[in-house]
Amino acid sequence: MTKKISIAIDAMGGDNSPFKTIEGVNLFIKKNSFKEDFIINLFGDESKINKELSKYKIPSRFFKITHTKSIVSDEETPLTAIKNSKNTSMWNCIKSQTDGNADISLSAGNTGVLLVISRMILKMMQEVSKPALAGLWPNVKNVNVVLDLGANIECNDENLVDFAELGSALYKSLFPNDRPIVSLLNIGSEEIKGTEILKRTYKKLNHLSSENNFIFKGYIEGNKIMDGETNVIVSDGFTGNIALKTAEGTAKFITDNLKESLTGNILSKLSLIFSYYALKKFKNKLDPRKYNGAILLGLNGPVVKSHGGIDGIGFYHSIDLCYKIVKGNLMDQIKNNLSHLSVNKK
Amino acid sequence: MTKKISIAIDAMGGDNSPFKTIEGVNLFIKKNSFKEDFIINLFGDESKINKELSKYKIPSRFFKITHTKSIVSDEETPLTAIKNSKNTSMWNCIKSQTDGNADISLSAGNTGVLLVISRMILKMMQEVSKPALAGLWPNVKNVNVVLDLGANIECNDENLVDFAELGSALYKSLFPNDRPIVSLLNIGSEEIKGTEILKRTYKKLNHLSSENNFIFKGYIEGNKIMDGETNVIVSDGFTGNIALKTAEGTAKFITDNLKESLTGNILSKLSLIFSYYALKKFKNKLDPRKYNGAILLGLNGPVVKSHGGIDGIGFYHSIDLCYKIVKGNLMDQIKNNLSHLSVNKK
Repeated sequence: MTKKISIAIDAMGGDNSPFKTIEGVNLFIKKNSFKEDFIINLFGDESKINKELSKYKIPSRFFKITHTKSIVSDEETPLTAIKNSKNTSMWNCIKSQTDGNADISLSAGNTGVLLVISRMILKMMQEVSKPALAGLWPNVKNVNVVLDLGANIECNDENLVDFAELGSALYKSLFPNDRPIVSLLNIGSEEIKGTEILKRTYKKLNHLSSENNFIFKGYIEGNKIMDGETNVIVSDGFTGNIALKTAEGTAKFITDNLKESLTGNILSKLSLIFSYYALKKFKNKLDPRKYNGAILLGLNGPVVKSHGGIDGIGFYHSIDLCYKIVKGNLMDQIKNNLSHLSVNKK
Repeated sequence: MTKKISIAIDAMGGDNSPFKTIEGVNLFIKKNSFKEDFIINLFGDESKINKELSKYKIPSRFFKITHTKSIVSDEETPLTAIKNSKNTSMWNCIKSQTDGNADISLSAGNTGVLLVISRMILKMMQEVSKPALAGLWPNVKNVNVVLDLGANIECNDENLVDFAELGSALYKSLFPNDRPIVSLLNIGSEEIKGTEILKRTYKKLNHLSSENNFIFKGYIEGNKIMDGETNVIVSDGFTGNIALKTAEGTAKFITDNLKESLTGNILSKLSLIFSYYALKKFKNKLDPRKYNGAILLGLNGPVVKSHGGIDGIGFYHSIDLCYKIVKGNLMDQIKNNLSHLSVNKK
């Protein structure tokens, strides 16, 4: 019998928890119970968790609860967290990886605190200069990995090369049959464009591209992120965060406008009867809940951050992401990328 | 009689010119002929321009043609342009401002070359550290000014403060009754977030905000750009360009998906009959042609860059922008902002 995939979940993090986290857990178990190859470790207030669990019929072999009284508050800053977060549900959820009881940790709690204590507990991989936060971004074909989304506001070329390796390892864990195509986010596609750091990174990635782990495609501009021609998009955390949030804001602006237009008069409302399924399909494809979950890469264990305000369906998608990442051997993919390339990296 | 607003147009720049530039000129003159307060100076191949003009019935008092044989090619780099661009339609179009024959110049040609030769010919304003490229961005209420969109990839706090002043002058020229609200693009809204340069800029803008020219509202995140709570958004050219292009790409991705969904089956196609006007209104509001035209600010004269691939309607909108900017006394607004604030700026 192979070892089960063990997912540690901070049941208390984010808005409306454990209501939404347990709703997500229930959805995940319902859809995957035939697999029998995983176990969910829940961290948080046992009585509250049990109250939520009692709403569903989940076979007890699929989960464990580790009672943890305190939680990380939204007001906690990364600075105060080092002192105050010990033995919170978030802390114990991450700690369970070093105890050998989990393959991955998931929380919808305070992002800054999660980044700091993950790094404290799991420690950085020796070969990595800075950990990065990666996200999944829809494109015309399927989905991209984009990183860093905000863990590091200033990055040098060595960091960016690491992100390319970490990002392609993540992509390979999700799509094992592909050789990832990597691009570097910039303001033009010509080799001479951009900052000195980007130009140096370009040269290094071009050189590494001859190795077998990924194909470097050069620079990519913001308007091409969703074109589906690239699998991994590399950026410093400042730029990546601006791009991600600008895309979110634009998507919201457009869909709000569409909604307003289509419900503006009786005739357009009537049209909704005929376009109901088409619009549902459209909405479903672009549903941000499907892309919920940013992955912290570069530590001695993966940590996934769910959006704090997401609902149970969104939280389900982040559990599903955790499962897929471990199933796809993310940590081995990373080690393979890093060791393979370390000779030529500098 | 007051002096007429004189708009210099490079009739040859961009794809399909002078076909599209003259189409735009015709539209502008048709819509504004009752005003009688402007004149269009066209620069380019006279016979080609006349051939296009002959398609329309434009009274000759609204335009002048200055024959200019050579044009700036798309392959020209900013470096080679200094040597090769003299006496091209773009060059003469900008030059006419220093000769006192134009209040503003408009071109859809090569962006890099336009930035370089505009700076050569018009020279930087003494009080400005770096010129910036500003764009109009739709929001839920109306439109924002966003700058810099790519003229300067690295900026210090002094540059960013200048951009705030230039941007609010531009906003005031377009909306004379408003006191512009200025925000600084960052990855969080708290005062402690972001790079050292942004933190220093924050302090300076906070201080300047007590003056009367604009209200500084602090940091803004990418997802709030279109919320309509801010009139001027300040950023370095790298970040601004990434944000702009990411928004463009996201908008295209979503509208393409919508189109595909709504024409996917016979039932949804049927719905289009009922939603025709609603969707037309939606499309019209988000039509990127309405926001065509980036404004180069900080030189001793304004230069507007139209998108090279835009059609005649888009080019019309950039002419309209030129007219409004001059009508709103952009250069006076800038001088007023800069002189008013120069004492407290450093």
